[in-house]
Amino acid sequence: MTKPTLALALGDPAGISPELTARALADGEIAEAARLVVFGDKRVLDRGARDAGVELNVETADAAPDEAPTRHVFIDRADCDPASIPRGEISEASGGSALGNFRAAISYARSGPASALTFTPFNKAAMRLVHPAYEDEVVFLNEELAFDGEASEFNILPNVWNARVTSHVPLSGVAPLMTIDRIVDKLAGTEQAMKAAGIASPRIAVAGLNPHAGDNGNFGREEIEVIAPAVAEGRQRGIVCEGPFPSDTVFLRAKRGDFDAVLTMFHDQGQIAIKMMGFDEGVTLLGGYPFPVCTPAHGTAYDIAGQGKADFGATRAALQLAARLAHASAPA
Amino acid sequence: MTKPTLALALGDPAGISPELTARALADGEIAEAARLVVFGDKRVLDRGARDAGVELNVETADAAPDEAPTRHVFIDRADCDPASIPRGEISEASGGSALGNFRAAISYARSGPASALTFTPFNKAAMRLVHPAYEDEVVFLNEELAFDGEASEFNILPNVWNARVTSHVPLSGVAPLMTIDRIVDKLAGTEQAMKAAGIASPRIAVAGLNPHAGDNGNFGREEIEVIAPAVAEGRQRGIVCEGPFPSDTVFLRAKRGDFDAVLTMFHDQGQIAIKMMGFDEGVTLLGGYPFPVCTPAHGTAYDIAGQGKADFGATRAALQLAARLAHASAPA
Repeated sequence: MTKPTLALALGDPAGISPELTARALADGEIAEAARLVVFGDKRVLDRGARDAGVELNVETADAAPDEAPTRHVFIDRADCDPASIPRGEISEASGGSALGNFRAAISYARSGPASALTFTPFNKAAMRLVHPAYEDEVVFLNEELAFDGEASEFNILPNVWNARVTSHVPLSGVAPLMTIDRIVDKLAGTEQAMKAAGIASPRIAVAGLNPHAGDNGNFGREEIEVIAPAVAEGRQRGIVCEGPFPSDTVFLRAKRGDFDAVLTMFHDQGQIAIKMMGFDEGVTLLGGYPFPVCTPAHGTAYDIAGQGKADFGATRAALQLAARLAHASAPA
Repeated sequence: MTKPTLALALGDPAGISPELTARALADGEIAEAARLVVFGDKRVLDRGARDAGVELNVETADAAPDEAPTRHVFIDRADCDPASIPRGEISEASGGSALGNFRAAISYARSGPASALTFTPFNKAAMRLVHPAYEDEVVFLNEELAFDGEASEFNILPNVWNARVTSHVPLSGVAPLMTIDRIVDKLAGTEQAMKAAGIASPRIAVAGLNPHAGDNGNFGREEIEVIAPAVAEGRQRGIVCEGPFPSDTVFLRAKRGDFDAVLTMFHDQGQIAIKMMGFDEGVTLLGGYPFPVCTPAHGTAYDIAGQGKADFGATRAALQLAARLAHASAPA
C-alpha cells in the first residue's frame, strides 16, 4: 500500500508548534504511516528541532512537489525569522506566517497530491492581526475552498468520539433544530467517518436533549417525538446506535467501553464532558470537506514554548488519523 | 456548643443503606459532630452492622424523644423483617419500610428537636410500589410539608458546589427563564447556603448559557443582556462572583481551585460535569425548606449490598454538612 501524502501546516511559531512539527518529521511511527509535506519557515523548524532535541534530516524545497513524494518534504516559505518572534507572545509576524502556512497547505490538499490536511496549533488572535476576518479554522476553510456545505466537527479521544447535531447556535435555537432527518444525517456521517478511521462497526450512543432525557415526556417531548424515531431510522439503515440516553451519564458509559461514540444534540452537552475527560490529549477532525482535516485538540501552550516539554501524543494521533482517513478516501 | 440533633431515615433496606446507617451510628467523627435520631427497623440495622463489621451500642426506643437527646437514638419502627427482604431486589416490603422511615424522619425534623433531615439512599421504584405518586424526594417533601416554595438543589463535591438556575424544565424552556432576578436570587441562595456550611467567603463562578458563553453575542445574547448584569448586581450586593464563563471549561477551573462553586443555568450543564468529576462521592443538599436536607449523592448499590464494601465517605460528608448547617440555623 502506498503511503498517503499529508499536507501539514506549521502552526503558531511562538508556541509549541515548531517543536511538535519537528517531532512529527522525526517520528518513526509517522514515517511508517505517511509522507508529510510540511509548510513553514525552515529556521522556525530548526529552532523547534533544537527545542525538541531531535535531529532532522529532511529534504527541503522551495515549492511543493507535483507528485506524491517518497519521503517527507519541508517547503521553506522563508517568511519568518525566529529571531523576530518572541516565544509565548502574539505578534503580527507569527500570525502572518501561520496564516500563510495554513493557506499553502490548504491549497496543496486541494490541488496537489496530498489527500489530507493537518496542522499544529494556531493562535487565532495572532492570525487576526494580519487577517481581521479570521474567525476560526472552519470559517477560513470554507472561504479558501469556496465551500458552502456544512462541515462536521468530531472531537476524538483515544476511546470515544463525539459528534454533535447542532454546534454554534444559541441555546434557545437548539430545540427547533431537532429534526429526524438532521439527526439521522449526523448518525450516518459519524458512522462513515469512524469506519473510514478504521473502526469496523462503531457503536454510537445518542444523547437526549432534555434533563433525564425528558423523563418519559415529563421534561420535554423531543426524545419521544424526534430522537427515538431518528435512532430507530438509523438502526433500520444498519447503523449500530442506541438511545436517547440522559446526557449526564452517557459519556460515563462510553468511557467505560459501552460505546465508541456519543452523538450529542448541542455544543456544550459534548464539550463539557469531553473537556472533563481530558480533551487536550484528543484530536479534532473536520469532516465534510473534499479531504479530511485533522489537528491536535490542544492549543499553542505559550507557557511551555521552547522548553522541550510539549507532549507529542495528540499530534501523533492527529497525523495517524489523517493517514487512515486518507487511505480510506483514496481511489482503489 | 451543643451538638445538633439530626433526623436520619434508614433508606432502602435491600441495598447498602443498612450498612451505611450502622456505620453512621458507629462513627467517631459523626458522634463528635451530632446526635442522630435514626428511624428504621432494628433488625435491618443489625443486619447492616453485621455487613459493615461494626459493633453497635445504641439506645433503642419505640418513639422519638421530645427533647434533644444526649446520645444517638434508634427508633425501632419494627415494620421490616430482613428475612423477608432479598438483597438487591425491589419489593413492596422494602419500599414501604423506607417510605415509612422517611415520613417519620420528616415529621421529626418538622416538629421535633431535630434541626436537619438526612437519609441513606432510597430506591424510588420500590417506594412507588406502595406509593405510586412518589416522584422524587423533593416532590414528597413538598407534599409532606405542604411546602409551596421552591427547593434549591445543591450538588456538593469535596471542593466544588454546583447550584442551578433552572432544573427539571425542557431545554426549549430554559432561555425564557433567564432573568436577572432569578439569577441573583440563586447567587444569594448559594452564598447563604455555603456560608451556613462554613465557607466564609465563597467564590462563585457563573456559567454562560450559550456555546462559548455566547462568543460576544455571536451565539446568543443572554450573557450580555441577562447574565453579566446579574453578576454585576450580585457583586454590588457583596457576593464574590464572576462570569459568565463558557460552561465547558468553568468546572475545570473550579476543580483546580479557582472557585468554590459554579452556578449553572440549566440541569445538564452542571450534571454532566459533576458526574464526570465523580459525584458518587458527593452530597446532595436541598435548601429552601424549614430545615436543611442532606443525603449522599450515590444510590442503593444493589450490586454490592451485604458485602461490607460500601464506601461510607459520602454519607459521612452528608451528615457532617447537615450538622454544620444545623448549627448555622440554630437560634443563638
